[in-house]
Parts: sequence; structure tokens; C-alpha cells
Amino acid sequence: MVMGTSTRTLNIGIIGFGPFAQFLAETMIKQDHVVRATSRSDYSALLGPKFFRDMEEFMKVGHDVIMICTSILSVSEVVKSIPFHCLKKPTLFADVLSVKEHPRQILLQEVPEDSDVVCTHPMFGPESGKDGWNGLNFMYERVRVRDEDVCSRFLNIFESEGCKMIEMTCEEHDRLAAQSQFVTHTIGRILSEMQITNTPIDTKGFEKLVQVKENTANDSLDLYTGLFIHNRFAKQQMKNLEHALERVKGSLEASMKNEDGHN
Amino acid sequence: MVMGTSTRTLNIGIIGFGPFAQFLAETMIKQDHVVRATSRSDYSALLGPKFFRDMEEFMKVGHDVIMICTSILSVSEVVKSIPFHCLKKPTLFADVLSVKEHPRQILLQEVPEDSDVVCTHPMFGPESGKDGWNGLNFMYERVRVRDEDVCSRFLNIFESEGCKMIEMTCEEHDRLAAQSQFVTHTIGRILSEMQITNTPIDTKGFEKLVQVKENTANDSLDLYTGLFIHNRFAKQQMKNLEHALERVKGSLEASMKNEDGHN
Ligand SMILES: NC(=O)c1ccc[n+]([C@@H]2O[C@H](COP(=O)([O-])OP(=O)(O)OC[C@H]3O[C@@H](n4cnc5c(N)ncnc54)[C@H](OP(=O)(O)O)[C@@H]3O)[C@@H](O)[C@H]2O)c1
Ligand SMILES: NC(=O)c1ccc[n+]([C@@H]2O[C@H](COP(=O)([O-])OP(=O)(O)OC[C@H]3O[C@@H](n4cnc5c(N)ncnc54)[C@H](OP(=O)(O)O)[C@@H]3O)[C@@H](O)[C@H]2O)c1
Repeated sequence: MVMGTSTRTLNIGIIGFGPFAQFLAETMIKQDHVVRATSRSDYSALLGPKFFRDMEEFMKVGHDVIMICTSILSVSEVVKSIPFHCLKKPTLFADVLSVKEHPRQILLQEVPEDSDVVCTHPMFGPESGKDGWNGLNFMYERVRVRDEDVCSRFLNIFESEGCKMIEMTCEEHDRLAAQSQFVTHTIGRILSEMQITNTPIDTKGFEKLVQVKENTANDSLDLYTGLFIHNRFAKQQMKNLEHALERVKGSLEASMKNEDGHN
Repeated sequence: MVMGTSTRTLNIGIIGFGPFAQFLAETMIKQDHVVRATSRSDYSALLGPKFFRDMEEFMKVGHDVIMICTSILSVSEVVKSIPFHCLKKPTLFADVLSVKEHPRQILLQEVPEDSDVVCTHPMFGPESGKDGWNGLNFMYERVRVRDEDVCSRFLNIFESEGCKMIEMTCEEHDRLAAQSQFVTHTIGRILSEMQITNTPIDTKGFEKLVQVKENTANDSLDLYTGLFIHNRFAKQQMKNLEHALERVKGSLEASMKNEDGHN
């Protein structure tokens, strides 16, 4: 029983303890994993994981997994500043960034050869996952995995909550996420700029758009900017969106002329 | 009992028997109203209401309510061609168009002085209302009502199904619907043009956008064009949407420059 518990319990170190990391840590602690965290800002006043202000001390703990949970825009700087020489043993590095080719490349470049790398993207956040993770999508690529046991125990954190586990290359992820998640965030930010709000005569469709707007507004602007700058497929989707708007507008203007001629 | 039934049952004539009229007629028939219909196309093969190919014969029936359910683009032409001289008695004219100032003006202009006018907009369609109308919004303006009894029996068709009844001027409706429904249809059509579809890694937000796209695609292009041409507040919303997209894009481009300078 004690043995069983110890093989299932992971020592998880989190680098970057912002809103999303705190949200993930809650479930990890609930599952009896031992969570420790470090971040640019000081979160030592927060309940939950033990917080390390000093990165070297944090690295010396001997984590099974180090989870990179920093913003997309800062990941390169953050990973390059990790004192890898303090690692006590080969460790699994797992990232949860919303773009995947970019952290994959950085981790492969920076993480010591004897440590493993898994790139993941939980396709949900503090809002859409607030009632549990059952049925929500979780994407991952086993980029460089030798310690299968630690890697599957890490993935099992999500699988055991009911996530739909999707194994996929980081490239394929970025291609699909540009069409789906990046477009969603863009529409949400457009609706924010338009300051749309509920009316007494909402349709069901409009209610959905208000929800998309509100969920997007909760995420940081850094996150959205990161989706654009570090997903090489995003620029094309922005162009597609602009052209689609032009075509829709063009067809309205054409039928307007038709109507005028008609009357 | 027989008397009770006869006071509650309405003779309803429908002009314009397209998808939305057929959807409404189903519930009216379920509620034991007597429904008759006429339309540009021949729907006499359909089960349900008795169908009249001849508009004069249709008008001679002696309906309590004549419901105008034709497209926004054709309503002017259709109402002007109604043989009002065939009416046997004062009748309530009710429209269900998705814009409201336009039909209101036409009905006030064309409907004989001794007949009543109520302008309504059920804020749902065959898709969003397929599991019943409970909790869905129903907007109306009593434009010219003397026969309170017939008008409330007509409105009760919707109220008794659980609709949220919202009394509002046609002007206020058009102002709000331009911000909500027109924007929703525009986003839906943009997403259609982009050919977005579900992916294996959908977020909840993206799933909502796919639903908005699919519901919009089910509605006719005439309906969307009508929302734009005959709601005087729609053009401004189209401009707002374009400017919002420009601002979102501008802020991405600015942070991209920042990042470039930074690295
Ligand atoms: N929110 C979601 O729904 C969601 C879902 C899936 C994946 N993700 C991914 O999870 C990661 C965290 O997301 P988030 O929602 O918490 O917000 P975020 O704004 O994307 O990232 C905030 C985190 O980045 C750190 N950070 C930002 N700039 C930094 C810098 N210059 N140097 C060092 N650290 C820096 C912050 O540290 P301090 O707090 O210490 O300042 C904080 O830990 C992102 O990569 C995001 O793409 C988020
Ligand atoms: N669909 C919805 O969810 C919804 C919701 C609320 C309100 N509405 C309103 O309900 C009305 C009907 O909508 P709909 O969805 O059925 O589709 P629609 O495309 O807006 O209208 C179709 C109806 O208009 C008639 N029509 C079109 N052009 C005509 C013309 N030149 N001359 C005579 N009749 C013509 C059609 O007659 P034939 O079929 O005989 O050709 C059909 O009855 C519209 O005003 C719409 O705004 C629709």
C-alpha cells in the first residue's frame, strides 16, 4: 500500500506559477502529488505548493517532473536561465504551453541529454475546466522519453480526470490550433473591442458569442500575443479571417445594389 | 367545454410558408389552432395546414390572425400584393420578421384601418428551438391593437410554450438586434467562408464557434441579407466589426515589433 502510493505519487516542480499553473496544481495536489513551484513573481504567500524564491534551491529538490508553465513570450528566456547543473537526477521536462513547436525546439536545445522531454497542451483553462476535466481534450507528444514510467504517471494525472488523450506531433498541433484556438481568441478579442454585451432579446447563438468573449478576456494578452507570434500557422489564419470578412461584406454590398436596382 | 375550446382556438392564416413558418405551424397545430397557409411556391403536398394556391380564396377564409412569414427582402412586394378587399372581417396582422421597423411601416401603410397590427420576433429558429421554446426570447410590439382578446390569444401561443415575452418598440429591437443577432450571423458567415470545422483538439470555445457557424449556415442568405439591408443599425455594426478587427491586428503587429526589438 505504501509502496503502491509511492510509485503513483510524483514530485512535481512547476516553473512559472501564474493562473494556469495554479489551476493545474490544485488537481495535482488533490491527487496526492507533491507540488513545488518557482516563478518570477513571489507566490510564497499562496496556500498550496511549497514556493521557492531561489531557482537553484528549487532545482536541487530532486523532482520527478519539472513542468514549464510560463508564458509563451517568456519561455525562451526562462528555460535558458534554468540552472540545469543543479539537477540531482535525470528529470522529465513537461511543458503545457498553448503553442508547441516553439517550446519543443527550446527544450530539445536546452534540457540536458539524459533528461526526458514531453510537450503537452491541455485544451482547457481555469474557466472551461472549472467543473472538472472530464471529456476535455489533452494533446501531447513524447518528444524524448526513456523513463516510460514517469512519463505515463505524469500523463495519467490528466487521463485519470477523464481527459481525452490525443497523441499528435507539435507541428500538427500548431497547424490545427491556429485554425481553432487562435481564431477563437481572435473572435473573442474582436467582440471585446466591440464591447458586445447581453441584451434582453439575445438569441442562443449570440449567448455563445458572449461566452467566447468572456472566456477570452480572462486570458492574458501575453497568451494571445504568444499564439500569434510563436505559432507559424497563425498569420495565415489572420489573413483568412480578413479575407472572409471582405467576402461577406462584398456579398452584402452586391445584394444591396441589386435591391436598389430592383426597387 | 366546447365554448371554452372555441374561444381559445384561433384560425390562423400564414402568408409565406418557408422553413420558419413550417416550424411555427407545427406548434400551432399541436396547440389545436386551425392553420391555413399560402405562399409563392406550392406546398400543397406537405402534411399539416390546408394549403391555398390562390391568394383570394385564402383571404376569404375568415382568419382571426394572418401571420406574415415571408422573407425580409420580399415583404414589401408580398404585403402590397395581398387582396385585402377579400377580408371578411377585421383581422389581426402579425409578422415574425427578423427586422422590425421595416415590416411595421409597411403593415401600417397597407393593412386596412379596421384591422389590427402586432409586430413580433421569435428570437429562435428551427435549430435553436428544436427541443421546445421554453426560456427562449419572444419580442413584440402591439402596434395597433383594438381586439385585445385575439392579440393576447395569439401571443399566448408563445407564452404558453414558456417563451420569455419581451414588449419593446420595433426601433429598440432593431438597435439591439443589430448588435447581437446581425453580428452573430456575420461571424457565422465569416467562419463558413473560412471553412472552419471541428478538430481532434477543440477547445470548448471553438466548439461554440462551430455551432454558431452551423446554425447560421442553416438560415437562408436572403435572411442574412435582409438583416443588413432593412435594419438601419446594421451598417454601423459592420463598421464596428471591421474596426475592431483592425485594432486587434494592430496590437498584434505592435507586440511583434516589440518582440523583434527585444530579441
Ligand atoms: N490559461 C489557460 O487557459 C491556458 C491553457 C492551456 C495552456 N496555457 C499555457 O500556460 C502558460 C501559462 O498561462 P497563464 O494563463 O498562466 O498566463 P500567461 O500570461 O500566458 O503566463 C503567465 C506566466 O508567465 C510568467 N512570465 C511572464 N512573463 C515572464 C517573464 N518575462 N519572465 C519570467 N516569467 C514570466 C508569469 O510569471 P509570474 O506570475 O511569476 O510573473 C506567469 O507564471 C502559457 O504558456 C499558456 O499558453 C494556458
Ligand atoms: N429561420 C429563422 O430562424 C427565423 C427566426 C425568426 C424569424 N424569422 C423570419 O421568418 C421569415 C421566414 O424565414 P425563413 O427562415 O423561412 O426563410 P427566408 O428565406 O427568410 O424566407 C422564406 C420565405 O419567403 C418567401 N419568399 C422569398 N422571396 C419571395 C418573393 N420574391 N416573393 C414571395 N415570397 C418570397 C418564401 O416563399 P416560398 O417558400 O413560397 O418560395 C418563403 O416563404 C423571415 O422574415 C425571417 O426573418 C426566421
